[in-house]
Amino acid sequence: MLYPETFDVIVVGGGHAGTEAALASARMGCRTLLLTHNIETLGQMSCNPSIGGIGKGHLVKEVDALGGAMAIATDEGGIQFRILNGSKGPAVRATRAQADRILYKAAIRRRLENQPNLTLFQQAVDDLIVEGDRVTGAVTQVGIRFTARAVVLTAGTFLDGRIHVGLNNYQAGRAGDPPAISLSARLKELKLPQGRLKTGTPPRLDGRTIDFSKCEEQGGDLDPVPVFSFMGRADMHPAQMPCWVTHTNERTHEIIRSGFDRSPMFTGKIEGVGPRYCPSVEDKVNRFADKESHQIFLEPEGLSTNEYYPNGISTSLPFDIQYQLVRSMAGLEHAHILRPGYAIEYDYFDPRSLKSNFETRSIEGLFFAGQINGTTGYEEAAAQGLFAGINAALKCRGDSPWLPGRDEAYLGVLVDDLITKGVTEPYRMFTSRAEFRLQLREDNADLRLTEAGRKLGLVDDVRWDSFSRKRDAVSRETQRLASVWVNPRNLPAAESERVLGKAIEHEYNLGDLLRRPDVDYSALMSLAGGVYANPEISREHLGELLEPVIEQIDIAAKYSGYIDRQRDEVERSAHYENLKLPDDLDYSQVTALSFEVRQKLNKHRPETLGMASRISGVTPAAVSLLLVHLKKTRFKGLTPVDTSKVAA
Amino acid sequence: MLYPETFDVIVVGGGHAGTEAALASARMGCRTLLLTHNIETLGQMSCNPSIGGIGKGHLVKEVDALGGAMAIATDEGGIQFRILNGSKGPAVRATRAQADRILYKAAIRRRLENQPNLTLFQQAVDDLIVEGDRVTGAVTQVGIRFTARAVVLTAGTFLDGRIHVGLNNYQAGRAGDPPAISLSARLKELKLPQGRLKTGTPPRLDGRTIDFSKCEEQGGDLDPVPVFSFMGRADMHPAQMPCWVTHTNERTHEIIRSGFDRSPMFTGKIEGVGPRYCPSVEDKVNRFADKESHQIFLEPEGLSTNEYYPNGISTSLPFDIQYQLVRSMAGLEHAHILRPGYAIEYDYFDPRSLKSNFETRSIEGLFFAGQINGTTGYEEAAAQGLFAGINAALKCRGDSPWLPGRDEAYLGVLVDDLITKGVTEPYRMFTSRAEFRLQLREDNADLRLTEAGRKLGLVDDVRWDSFSRKRDAVSRETQRLASVWVNPRNLPAAESERVLGKAIEHEYNLGDLLRRPDVDYSALMSLAGGVYANPEISREHLGELLEPVIEQIDIAAKYSGYIDRQRDEVERSAHYENLKLPDDLDYSQVTALSFEVRQKLNKHRPETLGMASRISGVTPAAVSLLLVHLKKTRFKGLTPVDTSKVAA
Repeated sequence: MLYPETFDVIVVGGGHAGTEAALASARMGCRTLLLTHNIETLGQMSCNPSIGGIGKGHLVKEVDALGGAMAIATDEGGIQFRILNGSKGPAVRATRAQADRILYKAAIRRRLENQPNLTLFQQAVDDLIVEGDRVTGAVTQVGIRFTARAVVLTAGTFLDGRIHVGLNNYQAGRAGDPPAISLSARLKELKLPQGRLKTGTPPRLDGRTIDFSKCEEQGGDLDPVPVFSFMGRADMHPAQMPCWVTHTNERTHEIIRSGFDRSPMFTGKIEGVGPRYCPSVEDKVNRFADKESHQIFLEPEGLSTNEYYPNGISTSLPFDIQYQLVRSMAGLEHAHILRPGYAIEYDYFDPRSLKSNFETRSIEGLFFAGQINGTTGYEEAAAQGLFAGINAALKCRGDSPWLPGRDEAYLGVLVDDLITKGVTEPYRMFTSRAEFRLQLREDNADLRLTEAGRKLGLVDDVRWDSFSRKRDAVSRETQRLASVWVNPRNLPAAESERVLGKAIEHEYNLGDLLRRPDVDYSALMSLAGGVYANPEISREHLGELLEPVIEQIDIAAKYSGYIDRQRDEVERSAHYENLKLPDDLDYSQVTALSFEVRQKLNKHRPETLGMASRISGVTPAAVSLLLVHLKKTRFKGLTPVDTSKVAA
Repeated sequence: MLYPETFDVIVVGGGHAGTEAALASARMGCRTLLLTHNIETLGQMSCNPSIGGIGKGHLVKEVDALGGAMAIATDEGGIQFRILNGSKGPAVRATRAQADRILYKAAIRRRLENQPNLTLFQQAVDDLIVEGDRVTGAVTQVGIRFTARAVVLTAGTFLDGRIHVGLNNYQAGRAGDPPAISLSARLKELKLPQGRLKTGTPPRLDGRTIDFSKCEEQGGDLDPVPVFSFMGRADMHPAQMPCWVTHTNERTHEIIRSGFDRSPMFTGKIEGVGPRYCPSVEDKVNRFADKESHQIFLEPEGLSTNEYYPNGISTSLPFDIQYQLVRSMAGLEHAHILRPGYAIEYDYFDPRSLKSNFETRSIEGLFFAGQINGTTGYEEAAAQGLFAGINAALKCRGDSPWLPGRDEAYLGVLVDDLITKGVTEPYRMFTSRAEFRLQLREDNADLRLTEAGRKLGLVDDVRWDSFSRKRDAVSRETQRLASVWVNPRNLPAAESERVLGKAIEHEYNLGDLLRRPDVDYSALMSLAGGVYANPEISREHLGELLEPVIEQIDIAAKYSGYIDRQRDEVERSAHYENLKLPDDLDYSQVTALSFEVRQKLNKHRPETLGMASRISGVTPAAVSLLLVHLKKTRFKGLTPVDTSKVAA
């Protein structure tokens, strides 16, 4: 049957990618249809019950700045919030939250159900409608034909999905869910360049059988309690819960090794490549054989369940090994496994066959987003979904694509990495992937993207008003700081020493002073004496600013120098694009590089620095480090450009 | 792998039957394992979002009286509560609630997760372990072997499940869930007597697209707000919501008829028999061709969703017909279907091959409960689950089975009907199935069963204390009423006329007076004058009783005469067990009988009344009506027993 209504955009799949794609397209005013095999599983967290982390939190804040759902749903469902790297520079600081699975799912579903222009329909998709080299719709399992001008495919792990536990395996899209077999076969017929990847998940534990007194408690941040969304408030959060930490030990590792001969990974049963950065516990024990212990986080799955997610023991070893390895750890001696860990193999498609807007090169109107593009992680999926949703909507409107640059957003880095480098293993985001990482911070995601989002039609009035107020306050205060001058005449030496640590020798404006690493904004505001010729422009008179405004002004002041230097550095790397690398270089000796990068460079032996930078896993940061090494070892191939400023 | 712990009872399946079976067995102290293909779907309401109704509410109250979960979970998740037949006799009064799917599921899961002695494990079951003629365990999809002394199989619609929408069909256990194919094949190998049944569900609608102003509103009861569980309180209920009513019309029926040639039922694609009492809309239009309209209830699926369940249009017609038929109704002109309606065919096993404790005759230790026994309905499933869980636990303990009689519980009627009559179509409960229905009321489910439940170990201290207080209060008050005498001397005629409608001519105790149909308990308590020789035994002095206590005393008094008569009547029917029925009787002329019973009797033409009573669908009430008819027509086969008292 041909469905009587036609749509602008059809999104296939209701996970993190599909959700953001459908919401974005609908926010932009396109008539959007979300097809899911099961409305009950919309927004389901298939693996760990957490959102964010370094690089990933950055993506979530960007999705949020563009009006997306992931951050605010986490604020509504989050049961523990932390700022990672809180003591490090703001570029690598990142928000991470544990989420109650049921509350998170409910928050996502509520948004999907109530989004204007968005229609939901439950039915697995078995086929695409392709006319010539153009997609025109999708066909469901019982033959309902939906037509649209664009289709966004976000099939996650479902395409020809196969679950492995030891040497046993069966077809599934996720534990408990059926796979998408027909659609996989159909995509193969369309001759899109396809491969297999795998990912895994740990066994889940019954909290009633864990002895938490033998584990270390890890609480969330309390002062302040972090929020994820620009529109979030800490009072949206439900009750908060601690995580717990235990460790693997030699006995655990022995047990794991004893299962190697029945590991589907090591015996070749699994052909798909797994995520290096989210490895299975057997992979860790195998690759880092001399490491005696790994940290395992016991993460609560929600307020209304006793289930715990033991983060760090993702595994596809046989169940008897899972059973023993869990029980070998402190606190888990009697732990009952509620759900076995498993690996899942699934189809992905080479993202190098996508255009820069995520449309497939060979089939017009067909967009791919999420795990289908070879990535791993909810956040990477959500960001891609948003991106594909936006571009599918733009295509329907007849507008040109929206393509944020690598210096504008992690979203730009993610898309560019995927379509230019492709993947050899599931791709996850890291700050080291962004050469402009000092300016791509969580704290300025709104300032980087919300204006663009507003122009695209993604940002509603409430967010826009709130954002505009913040942006204007930052801008006004920045101007004010630049206009207030202090000098040895109007600032008594004692006051200067109190606030600045020493007397000033000539005139500065407040903006200049704020750049100093040890000058605090609120102390600077307390400067007394005759600083304000016109007291009406003192902060005391104008009233206090909100914390996020102050934070932004402070970070912008302190980091502007580093950000300028970073731009030089990026230009310098580009300059060395064609630098021939030494033939005899033993990369394993370049200890500044990560083990992984050394391995890859030794394996691929790129001819030029540019080729090195395009190897999947060789980050811009690694390229900089390599340049430093070459300089230190006085490699003659270097042109006489000054490399003294090159730093990691 | 052989799982290192052994269990007393393994329950396979986490629906309404599996839930009650597992909880009951664990409450009785047996080490119990619940195996489910997906922990997320525990307690899922696969079809309508409501619990209870006539006959069904009775079962729920019985499950509750034995400590089960269904009633209290409904109190926690129910968004509308009504007493059906509130103006009729107490025997046919029944509680019915709409439930928020998410809250109901959460309430069930919380109980399962926190039940002592109960272990959950997520994994589909592919096989049973059978040694000789004894089951000793179950094997999961990845080969984990769990051993136990008894296994309760509650596989619902999953065994070789196949979903039909028009002439399209595919394998599934429920929309969005994989089927149990291997287990079905294995059960066939075990040569258990198996057949196919089908059931169906309507398309679900997006409430945002319904024009409720064109529908009639139907609210819940407010004074008082009903509760389901003996332990429930109205303040447990979440916010309450109305249902809405619309109707099919001639146009709807035309549309439906236009799809008959592509109906999987009418074209023979579906071989399984569907539930006569919960028919698809095409079945209704086909069977009752002259009926111009059917009532359709639009039931909200929960507080946090816009989904509506249109009760009355269950269908497996092709989706294009579904689309049109929905839109042909008032208020639904623009209604969007979120999920298509469908029929599902699945394996069931002839319950006549079960022992009276629901253990299979051929395989010791293997119990069947729920839809697998050929029933339909959540309540029928829950009741069977509880029953099988209890008897599996008793078997493990080495105790004799618990077999409630047909005069003790609907549970007894249900089990007896199934194992003696079998099924020819999905069996659902009705009050007419119970020959002792006047004593099998919702209001006395606790008094009928909680003592037995306590002895079995099913009833916890809190419920037992609460129950005992009520039971004792009823008993004390009943005795007190029997001990207070009124007579023309101590009761002034005016006072007698006020309360009893007329003066009394001789002495009565209060219990006698309460039997009078028009005498109200509270009015009786207000009798003034010299009634109480000892004022210390007046209710005024003793204090007020709780409403359920008064209700119980009042009903027991008013109905004791009817109940005695009912017992005679049942004996009389038994007496006529061997009564030869007239060869030439045209049952279609016996208009006191339902259309369905007339059809069945004409088809089967039983030789004796006993044989008639054992035809599936021929209820005890129908047998009584048939006897009345024979008497009226002065059928000569009747022995000279006085049948004047025989009544429906």
